[in-house]
Amino acid sequence: MAHQHVINANLVNPSTDVLYHLGLSYSEAEREQFQAIFGDIKFFICGGSAERMKTFAHKLAETMDIKTPFGYSLSHIGSTSRYTTYKVGPVLIANHGMGMPSISILLHEVTKLLEYAGAHDAIYIRMGTSGGVGVEGGTVVLTSEALNHELRPVHVVPILGKLVERPAKLSEAVTAEIAAVCDSISIPYAIGKTLCADDFYEEQGRLDGAICEYTNEEKLAFLQTCHDAGTRNIEMESRLFAAFTHKLNIPAAVVCVTLLNRLEGDQVTKPHSVLEEYDLRPMSVVLAYIKSKLQ
Amino acid sequence: MAHQHVINANLVNPSTDVLYHLGLSYSEAEREQFQAIFGDIKFFICGGSAERMKTFAHKLAETMDIKTPFGYSLSHIGSTSRYTTYKVGPVLIANHGMGMPSISILLHEVTKLLEYAGAHDAIYIRMGTSGGVGVEGGTVVLTSEALNHELRPVHVVPILGKLVERPAKLSEAVTAEIAAVCDSISIPYAIGKTLCADDFYEEQGRLDGAICEYTNEEKLAFLQTCHDAGTRNIEMESRLFAAFTHKLNIPAAVVCVTLLNRLEGDQVTKPHSVLEEYDLRPMSVVLAYIKSKLQ
Repeated sequence: MAHQHVINANLVNPSTDVLYHLGLSYSEAEREQFQAIFGDIKFFICGGSAERMKTFAHKLAETMDIKTPFGYSLSHIGSTSRYTTYKVGPVLIANHGMGMPSISILLHEVTKLLEYAGAHDAIYIRMGTSGGVGVEGGTVVLTSEALNHELRPVHVVPILGKLVERPAKLSEAVTAEIAAVCDSISIPYAIGKTLCADDFYEEQGRLDGAICEYTNEEKLAFLQTCHDAGTRNIEMESRLFAAFTHKLNIPAAVVCVTLLNRLEGDQVTKPHSVLEEYDLRPMSVVLAYIKSKLQ
Repeated sequence: MAHQHVINANLVNPSTDVLYHLGLSYSEAEREQFQAIFGDIKFFICGGSAERMKTFAHKLAETMDIKTPFGYSLSHIGSTSRYTTYKVGPVLIANHGMGMPSISILLHEVTKLLEYAGAHDAIYIRMGTSGGVGVEGGTVVLTSEALNHELRPVHVVPILGKLVERPAKLSEAVTAEIAAVCDSISIPYAIGKTLCADDFYEEQGRLDGAICEYTNEEKLAFLQTCHDAGTRNIEMESRLFAAFTHKLNIPAAVVCVTLLNRLEGDQVTKPHSVLEEYDLRPMSVVLAYIKSKLQ
């Protein structure tokens, strides 16, 4: 059977596949059970921290009125040594850790899982936090495309030692639908480009890392250049996420709230209660979006 | 006061510093308490998964005969939303997640913590698992230098959009001491180069990712080229770890067991009991090393 969202001739009708970092396995002998469990998935939602994704899983059950059977509680599936994964109704949920390598492993294994399950229509959404560039703290940025350090919307992967470029674009259609949801629930948002870095400190021009060999003026000039190129926020996963989903023709969006405006400072110093409220915004948007699509 | 292992003029005598991803804060007003808590640290030990680091913390307490006060239990410090951190006697322990971006954030924040604490002699060790290249599964590889996709021992960081190259070398002295410990406790080891990738599947030439557009022959030719250049294992954190510690003159080593020989296959299919025993080897080596240094 030809794959819909996997490009790998070695995996056509595999007898088994160990999804090592998820702590789950597929086997052809148990395909029907596998499809019965995972075949209904319509959304894959991921974010950085396991705690946040647990909160999301519980809020989703509440929002969608998915009842927990009496005598049971919502529990993670698979292993928790690398990621923490939940399935709530037609939504698969996992934390992706920090950085593109970490989210990359998750995407490979989840995409194989969904393929084997026959769940071919899933929409992928990454939600998270980010540093804003010229937008107020609390703004939800919907990524149009993700930029590399040259401010080009491509992800460069060295495959067998040779550099391969992949476009790092998100789905315009999904992004537009999510923007409409932001409007409907009055959450401030912007659609813009996202600079994606492999480092929180030096690569993002922060002044407070263990290494900093540039001045505040040089940092601000860099951030201004980013802003002029259409960058509205900076984070650490969107480029791989965009390139992977675009390559495999998976509809996908990135929904990140900004915790601060990097043109004004580096340290996250707002009161905890304000940051907590910001933190909840991507979740509220994604919950409202899923509800709008499923009802 | 000049820094010993931090290069950042902005952080000379800071009044406060929020170590955001650790969930810890430093303030000058509480410097004495901070130094009383963290000033004795002689080792920083990190590895991928939080579970493994918890096991290590408990084994370390046992090995070093550090008694838990009656009525208490060993507990993580700071936040667990990004990393899980322990302090057991003179050893700081944390999981670094997967990939260079994730370990990078941890290293910046731990290094600032140790600097503020006046713990200037700490040795950093990463322990973990890896794919072997031409060595038997179960071999502990001690990294001499970490290679990028061009098989060069440098880490390239884009800082304010410009590429900066840093040597990715580990400490020869620490590595030699750890090799002697491997000999003394009869654990098979090799000192060699480590290829460090940003991806588990395509960049490492695996045939079982959601995307694979090369043949088995092309993969094997790539791994043979790596082997010919002195590569003995492949993992995802050593290059940043080496470049960061070398830049800041921090003695450091990377101790990773190989779970399989990549010249023979891709999937980790050995029995669970065998893999568990392999998993424990870096831990046994590092415990014996710490014991040898502190006694």
